Amino acid sequence: MGTKIRIAIAGYGNLGRGVVAAIAQNADMELVGVFSRRDPASVTLLNSNAPVHAMADIHKFKNDIDVLILCGGSKNDLPEQGPALAAMFNTVDSFDTHAKIPEYFQAVNQAAEPAGNTALISVGWDPGLFSLNRLFGEAMLPQGETYTFWGKGLSQGHSDALRRVPGVKAAVQYTIPVPSAVDRVRNGELPALSTREKHTRDCYVVLAAGANEATVTQAIVTMPDYFADYDTSVNFITEEQLQRDHAAMPHGGFVIRSGKTGAGTQQVVEYSLKLDSNPEFTSSVLVAYARAAFRLNQQGSVGAKTVFDVAPGLLSPKTAADLRKELL
Amino acid sequence: MGTKIRIAIAGYGNLGRGVVAAIAQNADMELVGVFSRRDPASVTLLNSNAPVHAMADIHKFKNDIDVLILCGGSKNDLPEQGPALAAMFNTVDSFDTHAKIPEYFQAVNQAAEPAGNTALISVGWDPGLFSLNRLFGEAMLPQGETYTFWGKGLSQGHSDALRRVPGVKAAVQYTIPVPSAVDRVRNGELPALSTREKHTRDCYVVLAAGANEATVTQAIVTMPDYFADYDTSVNFITEEQLQRDHAAMPHGGFVIRSGKTGAGTQQVVEYSLKLDSNPEFTSSVLVAYARAAFRLNQQGSVGAKTVFDVAPGLLSPKTAADLRKELL
Repeated sequence: MGTKIRIAIAGYGNLGRGVVAAIAQNADMELVGVFSRRDPASVTLLNSNAPVHAMADIHKFKNDIDVLILCGGSKNDLPEQGPALAAMFNTVDSFDTHAKIPEYFQAVNQAAEPAGNTALISVGWDPGLFSLNRLFGEAMLPQGETYTFWGKGLSQGHSDALRRVPGVKAAVQYTIPVPSAVDRVRNGELPALSTREKHTRDCYVVLAAGANEATVTQAIVTMPDYFADYDTSVNFITEEQLQRDHAAMPHGGFVIRSGKTGAGTQQVVEYSLKLDSNPEFTSSVLVAYARAAFRLNQQGSVGAKTVFDVAPGLLSPKTAADLRKELL
Repeated sequence: MGTKIRIAIAGYGNLGRGVVAAIAQNADMELVGVFSRRDPASVTLLNSNAPVHAMADIHKFKNDIDVLILCGGSKNDLPEQGPALAAMFNTVDSFDTHAKIPEYFQAVNQAAEPAGNTALISVGWDPGLFSLNRLFGEAMLPQGETYTFWGKGLSQGHSDALRRVPGVKAAVQYTIPVPSAVDRVRNGELPALSTREKHTRDCYVVLAAGANEATVTQAIVTMPDYFADYDTSVNFITEEQLQRDHAAMPHGGFVIRSGKTGAGTQQVVEYSLKLDSNPEFTSSVLVAYARAAFRLNQQGSVGAKTVFDVAPGLLSPKTAADLRKELL
């Protein structure tokens, strides 16, 4: 390896911390800086001596960064930051609002392409590695069904929804696949499964002072989109219990493609993740795709891209010849 | 869809039959012919009216075929056919002698590149989809170990080895992962596993007239490379039992990457296949990659390639915009 790929991070939350740690595991990369909207003097990086800069100054670093990894949230940060930063840098982000991906792709592409930058959007495990497995599944087995199960894992979006319920002081939500549904899919039964049949939702809630358990429970289990279509359990705990037992962010899940070939021969393909830390794993995926973004840009492949556009060999620090020899 | 991709097949055995069936599941493709070294009049295709031609005439079809799928064996057919046919056509093959892949890649590349053809080599599930998962695993989790388990499944190579033992009239061999080893890997224990600890081998043997069970068993369990390093069971059965109970060709296995992120956080990624027909699944993979070979060639990307070089989106008949909308 000659020169290292110069990576910077925009946004220092759980994901940003994970990216710092992941870069340290990749010998061909170096972290050249972290950009934050907070006062840089107030941000102390964990296990890194990289400088922290004000996000407002990022345009001054155009020549110092090969790939910028965007670690902001999909709801408020990325819709604005994604296009703005792709106009200045090669970027990788984990935009995960599935329904808005086409619109986000267009906005990022319009910024990245004229600037000659490469912007990999919606990288992570879902969207990301799970999306790849949905694609592989239906490409290999055109006659079949794809099933995605999530969990057991802590869902950030559903935990946020709980916290907006009046009377809830703090809360976490776990998404849990229904074991019998998973078994039926694995057995190649091709079942038609309702939303309720696929996942259950377990909530751990700290009540606000004076709030009523029954009222809060009712508000949660009837909440449209988030809980009404699921079997939801609500468990009331203390703040101490929440901090002691629910601080980790595990997640995971399965993508299963069940299909038929020839005269009805059954074939089942399964991809599964068992993650003790969702943000740390997502960060590791972002960093591998940062390598690919850098290489795509060097090849002249510019504009917005997704995991579907990335030849897998671009993710590895190994040469194509070594990959053929060692991994094929 | 406008014009269909014109696919032809070289070699009509189990794999060739599977390719005929797989093409029928893909609306954007048509089978334009099968080439065989046998007398074409003696070859009757299953579920297809496509013409059968003599392999010796294949050079006459240079303008009629978009992609030729090579369905010969890796031992005797492909080392010769691969380069010869890649000089005339875009090709896809399932060359699976892992140790000889670099050499085979060079030979095919030297034929394909000057001819402006695209040749995807070593496509299938191992090498192929399993290779991809080995690559993804180490790219995402650089600190960790990758484990590949095969089976339960019928191994063609080991069955062939059994049939070469004096006193064996017919035989099949099943490769079986050791469940406790798989469990330890799935639990993230990162065990060091010897060959014997990972798989067992079950043999079902029909004795030749006058042969001795003890002698044959001894010859099998001590055979270097194939059986000596494994716990091998040898079961003697009748020819009727062999045909009744062991005619199917199931296979499958797992690729598991177990790694650590951050300060020792455990992350486990698993890819698994449960195939009721190994050749039919391999054929389905070949056909999806034939679509990619056609598109790569249209993009001007010529020479020998592997699954590592193929952006996943090229495998799907869907447009990039539809993929982003439906599968990302």
